[in-house]
Amino acid sequence: MSAWLEPEPYDWWPIVEDALAEDIGHGDVTSGCLSPDLLVDWHIEAQSEGFVCGVGIAEHLLGPYGSDPDQSAITAEKVDGDHVRRGDIVIQGRQLARRVMSAERTTLNFLMHLSGVATLTAQFVGKVQGTDAKIVDTRKTLPGLRALEKYAVRCGGGHNHRMGLYDGILVKDNHIAAAGSIRQAVEAIRSYASHMSKIEVECESLEDVQAAIEAGAEAVLLDNMDPFMMREAVQRFGDKCLIEASGGISLDTVAGVAKTGVALISVGQITHSAPALSFHLEIG
Amino acid sequence: MSAWLEPEPYDWWPIVEDALAEDIGHGDVTSGCLSPDLLVDWHIEAQSEGFVCGVGIAEHLLGPYGSDPDQSAITAEKVDGDHVRRGDIVIQGRQLARRVMSAERTTLNFLMHLSGVATLTAQFVGKVQGTDAKIVDTRKTLPGLRALEKYAVRCGGGHNHRMGLYDGILVKDNHIAAAGSIRQAVEAIRSYASHMSKIEVECESLEDVQAAIEAGAEAVLLDNMDPFMMREAVQRFGDKCLIEASGGISLDTVAGVAKTGVALISVGQITHSAPALSFHLEIG
Amino acid sequence: MSAWLEPEPYDWWPIVEDALAEDIGHGDVTSGCLSPDLLVDWHIEAQSEGFVCGVGIAEHLLGPYGSDPDQSAITAEKVDGDHVRRGDIVIQGRQLARRVMSAERTTLNFLMHLSGVATLTAQFVGKVQGTDAKIVDTRKTLPGLRALEKYAVRCGGGHNHRMGLYDGILVKDNHIAAAGSIRQAVEAIRSYASHMSKIEVECESLEDVQAAIEAGAEAVLLDNMDPFMMREAVQRFGDKCLIEASGGISLDTVAGVAKTGVALISVGQITHSAPALSFHLEIG
Amino acid sequence: MSAWLEPEPYDWWPIVEDALAEDIGHGDVTSGCLSPDLLVDWHIEAQSEGFVCGVGIAEHLLGPYGSDPDQSAITAEKVDGDHVRRGDIVIQGRQLARRVMSAERTTLNFLMHLSGVATLTAQFVGKVQGTDAKIVDTRKTLPGLRALEKYAVRCGGGHNHRMGLYDGILVKDNHIAAAGSIRQAVEAIRSYASHMSKIEVECESLEDVQAAIEAGAEAVLLDNMDPFMMREAVQRFGDKCLIEASGGISLDTVAGVAKTGVALISVGQITHSAPALSFHLEIG
Amino acid sequence: MSAWLEPEPYDWWPIVEDALAEDIGHGDVTSGCLSPDLLVDWHIEAQSEGFVCGVGIAEHLLGPYGSDPDQSAITAEKVDGDHVRRGDIVIQGRQLARRVMSAERTTLNFLMHLSGVATLTAQFVGKVQGTDAKIVDTRKTLPGLRALEKYAVRCGGGHNHRMGLYDGILVKDNHIAAAGSIRQAVEAIRSYASHMSKIEVECESLEDVQAAIEAGAEAVLLDNMDPFMMREAVQRFGDKCLIEASGGISLDTVAGVAKTGVALISVGQITHSAPALSFHLEIG
Amino acid sequence: MSAWLEPEPYDWWPIVEDALAEDIGHGDVTSGCLSPDLLVDWHIEAQSEGFVCGVGIAEHLLGPYGSDPDQSAITAEKVDGDHVRRGDIVIQGRQLARRVMSAERTTLNFLMHLSGVATLTAQFVGKVQGTDAKIVDTRKTLPGLRALEKYAVRCGGGHNHRMGLYDGILVKDNHIAAAGSIRQAVEAIRSYASHMSKIEVECESLEDVQAAIEAGAEAVLLDNMDPFMMREAVQRFGDKCLIEASGGISLDTVAGVAKTGVALISVGQITHSAPALSFHLEIG
Repeated sequence: MSAWLEPEPYDWWPIVEDALAEDIGHGDVTSGCLSPDLLVDWHIEAQSEGFVCGVGIAEHLLGPYGSDPDQSAITAEKVDGDHVRRGDIVIQGRQLARRVMSAERTTLNFLMHLSGVATLTAQFVGKVQGTDAKIVDTRKTLPGLRALEKYAVRCGGGHNHRMGLYDGILVKDNHIAAAGSIRQAVEAIRSYASHMSKIEVECESLEDVQAAIEAGAEAVLLDNMDPFMMREAVQRFGDKCLIEASGGISLDTVAGVAKTGVALISVGQITHSAPALSFHLEIG
Repeated sequence: MSAWLEPEPYDWWPIVEDALAEDIGHGDVTSGCLSPDLLVDWHIEAQSEGFVCGVGIAEHLLGPYGSDPDQSAITAEKVDGDHVRRGDIVIQGRQLARRVMSAERTTLNFLMHLSGVATLTAQFVGKVQGTDAKIVDTRKTLPGLRALEKYAVRCGGGHNHRMGLYDGILVKDNHIAAAGSIRQAVEAIRSYASHMSKIEVECESLEDVQAAIEAGAEAVLLDNMDPFMMREAVQRFGDKCLIEASGGISLDTVAGVAKTGVALISVGQITHSAPALSFHLEIG
Repeated sequence: MSAWLEPEPYDWWPIVEDALAEDIGHGDVTSGCLSPDLLVDWHIEAQSEGFVCGVGIAEHLLGPYGSDPDQSAITAEKVDGDHVRRGDIVIQGRQLARRVMSAERTTLNFLMHLSGVATLTAQFVGKVQGTDAKIVDTRKTLPGLRALEKYAVRCGGGHNHRMGLYDGILVKDNHIAAAGSIRQAVEAIRSYASHMSKIEVECESLEDVQAAIEAGAEAVLLDNMDPFMMREAVQRFGDKCLIEASGGISLDTVAGVAKTGVALISVGQITHSAPALSFHLEIG
Repeated sequence: MSAWLEPEPYDWWPIVEDALAEDIGHGDVTSGCLSPDLLVDWHIEAQSEGFVCGVGIAEHLLGPYGSDPDQSAITAEKVDGDHVRRGDIVIQGRQLARRVMSAERTTLNFLMHLSGVATLTAQFVGKVQGTDAKIVDTRKTLPGLRALEKYAVRCGGGHNHRMGLYDGILVKDNHIAAAGSIRQAVEAIRSYASHMSKIEVECESLEDVQAAIEAGAEAVLLDNMDPFMMREAVQRFGDKCLIEASGGISLDTVAGVAKTGVALISVGQITHSAPALSFHLEIG
Repeated sequence: MSAWLEPEPYDWWPIVEDALAEDIGHGDVTSGCLSPDLLVDWHIEAQSEGFVCGVGIAEHLLGPYGSDPDQSAITAEKVDGDHVRRGDIVIQGRQLARRVMSAERTTLNFLMHLSGVATLTAQFVGKVQGTDAKIVDTRKTLPGLRALEKYAVRCGGGHNHRMGLYDGILVKDNHIAAAGSIRQAVEAIRSYASHMSKIEVECESLEDVQAAIEAGAEAVLLDNMDPFMMREAVQRFGDKCLIEASGGISLDTVAGVAKTGVALISVGQITHSAPALSFHLEIG
Repeated sequence: MSAWLEPEPYDWWPIVEDALAEDIGHGDVTSGCLSPDLLVDWHIEAQSEGFVCGVGIAEHLLGPYGSDPDQSAITAEKVDGDHVRRGDIVIQGRQLARRVMSAERTTLNFLMHLSGVATLTAQFVGKVQGTDAKIVDTRKTLPGLRALEKYAVRCGGGHNHRMGLYDGILVKDNHIAAAGSIRQAVEAIRSYASHMSKIEVECESLEDVQAAIEAGAEAVLLDNMDPFMMREAVQRFGDKCLIEASGGISLDTVAGVAKTGVALISVGQITHSAPALSFHLEIG
């Protein structure tokens, strides 16, 4: 059984290998003191409560490899998206000591960060339980880690917005200003964009929402609106397009936003400011 | 004048270009609605107080390029390591609208994360002011961003520990267990390591410290010791080797640790859990 | 003025540089006979009638570079998407002879293939003139050239379908068979896909179309249906979702398909089987 | 037994992996609806008559991989260079459904294009049967695909000209003009080129051929000559150097050219304008 | 058992693969004449006396691979660092003939160069036997091969200086001149460098050595000093810092330098001018 | 005027950049002590007599760059292939101190090695002066540096053999043994190889030479033959094919070999064992 939550991201492998190379560079000077044949039993344990993400990466970095698969083994006790409590063993195995020592930090760096993202996401998701709102991520991700962070958001029960500027259209105020009006911006985009792409428009007023819908937008982003205006937007336009709330929404305020009836609440904090969830690796 | 704090990290350029490519992919579908010749004035403004890091990256992503340098311009109002207050303009310029729109998010993602690291570091540094202790970073960094995060630590007034497994030697409990003793581990390493590398040994007791010094270690890391034991370590061994405190040290506890007289306090949190510092880019 | 049709594809540069390296390898053995300082006037001329695509690439491969811009020059007489007749000069300039000789073939290989795609697309577009049908491309592209070929389709007046498996959802018969039913496949995808993505379902009967719409599909692909069934699909479902016709449509049959009222007609042939449009480069 | 025609091209693997990545990007959104463990039987069938090329690539993209080879299997029913008729099964196997769905299009894109090249080449080869002329390719190939296209030419019974500017010398009119004369150009090249390289000179008249041979050329390319002049060139110089005919030679005219006695006929069309040969992949 | 001397360098694999690609390019034209299934027995034999280095690389290039490990085999008779005499078999195996023929030259190129470095190093090491001096390498290495050459130095009994500008600090005369004095240069570096890095200062006089030690340097490099001055430096400062001799030291002079009591003697010649040690590969 | 000998190798730039990155890694720790704005005058001086190669690389590593070309300058006093005496200035300029310090070693490593190859080649060329023999290189080059070393051979007055396995055909004893006979090996290769490639056969006897010529070989390599047999080979076959002598030829024996009348003498030593030619860089 895979330790990944479906669908597994594609092509995470080079990111993980590059991170290992970033740490080892021309060689792990300290681990040269270990006998090259020494095998050890190891396990990774959670040190706080949260949601785990990165188990498949740990399998890659610490699992069997090369020509003698008998000497090493690995067993995932948790899979991505599982809840963990302090003291839970996440994954364990048997491996060459020097391989464990050289890959330990890189493994934990992924596990701690991605589990941190999943855990903070899950906290937001918990706050909106009982409403129809979904928590979605943003493009406010850490450089080079977007695909993995967006995967971690799903492990925490959140949903994904577009991956980047290439796979979704979000018309912002600056686009509108430059194009002349919401209608002109949307029409310009329609003229060349794929029919498979939805168009979302950032709105600062109910008039904007109206204009966006008339121009054919399939979704609107309510930017920093107060809950009263959000509720009105939902009442007037909720059956005509997807409505997303955005802008500085915190764990304290998210429940109130959700109750306005918006379909989507996007939160930058879950990727740009998630504190790490602690894990450690023990040998023996 | 360079917007980087000296010494500027080497080869940050591909990391930044890859992050831009991660966001734009096969193309920015939305910005196609902007006239290709439209020039705009833009500036980036701090939205909270802290220490800025990433201005040189912003210059790279938003600055003049190509064959017609006259049409674009850029001016850094702050340089890396500067203190900023809410509302301060960090950098401003004139550039093609579509270039600004396509690079905005990547620029801010670097600026917000690196400034977050610098700012949290500065908070730790502030807590130990008046002591001789230096705040140093760890290898608990976000995958792919280590060199930039360690640079951000310096922008916040902190100092750097080793960059990776290749440029420093830190003998941990698992190395010692596998090698048989501190002496045996250190001797094994001395037999092949460069004379330019210092050897640091992770110690869990004063006996360990004693053994490490006798084996020739130039630094010891006191792992999760209580302040009383740290103080005793400093008193007995502070003139014989560098003493570093480590292990779960927080903003609440760091001052107490510093007062024990340790030379170095390493803090994983400043890189693995720094919340972003907010900035936004405005046009017009 | 840019020689590219807006929006210009992103990151075409490495594809072009790699193609040049593929041709030159460790060095152009023949061009070593040319004096390194010899400058020549050159121009590229169309040898058949069609629509040009690749002028921006020619500018990159043959244009000014390095520290002495005075010695070279380049002028695009046509821009991508322009109609050309036999004998028309597309682009001309002055450049080092050995640079022209080394880059000539690579330049023409791009220009001939991309203009071939644009020209064949334009022929299909011409056949459906007067109807509401748009000609769209497929994923049946030549390996490594998809972004450029899809750009060429736009230069010929066509429109783009999804770029790849990552930026659009098309549920095929095998997905449906594996998932159990159209409803189950669409629901599974909705549970994890971004709200920004439309879902299209491949349909082999009107019952399939009905089921797809009930499951929430925003578009349907009528796979190898005869025109009568297509027309009925349009009449019954044309106001509920986008309707795309696909499957072996040729220059002979496309007009008939368009008259059924479908919104989109996808044609693999315009990318996988477009004959090159001839151009040659002359010196002097 | 290998599915490749000997000698197999070297280092085709990254081209194929890059093409797969071009299609999948950050992930196959649709295939996420398939159960990760679902295995299916699949086969690829020819939809037209021709010569197959790309079976080894199909083996790579759809064959067994990873740690559990038992669950997947693959059997090539045809090898590269084989003749196929509509309905022939080319290759079949058992594999994870999501892997088949994600790799299907990339596999077919290679197979259809390379088989198209092989098939068109075979048509030219058929036209010159009974003469001594060989059909050879040119550098008019699609960017990034040259080594594979030249391999496909061999699968269709053709022969390869130089691979690029680095492994063969062909002196063209512009080189001659710049060097002053055929003799001067050839002498300049001889002074630095490896003794392992033959020199071929592009000739527009019999005087050129004479001059080329006197300068030591080992081959001449008759550029756009009429058959009468070609025949005379063969009669006068055919025992002194290799004679290649080139320039706009089509399926209609190639037999006449071959009858002039030239040793080689180079045809750009077989690589730059070969229509795809149709195949489809079926599951179940 | 590994054929590498511990600790094995990290990430040598791409260097070796790139070298193979450098030789094979688009394909080994000659080896196409060999039957693809032909297996041969092969062995590599030393043709001169010396110390071997590169056996692990030979295992990689000529050893079992792919899905049928039964048909190939490899046995290292010597490991890196072993002494070899003319006629000694270093490594032998059974492998596809075409694989052996295509990889033979690349394998031998590594083996001959690295063994050359190990052998010349061993000659220097032999000359200083009976003293406390260690032979160390420099940064005068061949571009792209530094990590492997420094590994070869260890195989010959030498020791490694810093790997590059990033993992060690060596203050040279130009740094001192620019900074104003030894003290100022060292202080500037201390202010930002990691506490894990030792500082070495290049000295041209005993006053320089004195100043370096006062500034806190942990090592000094005596640049081109005569043995009398070296001896005095050792006597006055040998207990205060590591002393390294450097500058044009040859096999003739190294013993005299060692007798001065310096701890380290760095020799550029062992990497920049080591003649190859001869090996050949035989089949059958 | 270019500092390169024509024709300049293509794509040497990444090799040089990679070598710089190999040395600088995450940053030059020492050069951080230099003021970022400090400009210095520098020059590179020969320390021994020989032939220079690598001046174009020095221009790249130390020359003007970036947006302010006024502050830096560079002047090549010698070009590749020039003879130098001890004390000759090869190249000089004005540049930022930290850039000079960081690039100095990489620049000299290229210059010293490539000039070493050129100088040793020139010594061989000198020994055969007055004969018709050309000195040619082999594939016994240092991994990753082949194109530059073969360029250096030309700078020393030598000539190039094939670049790799892809651009020339050399049938060796093992090929012949596997194919059955010289005739069979050559015929197999002719059946698929390009008509642009010459075929050379390694011969151990005059019978081999005879067989090679009958099979159509255009060149033969006399492997380790004594001069008498070489002379006989030249007399009997010198007008029928190119004759190359090879195998352990040294500065002592090369003149004797040349006098036998062979056209080519290949020498592995000029690339695999050339001692560095000394240069140093001075500032101020």
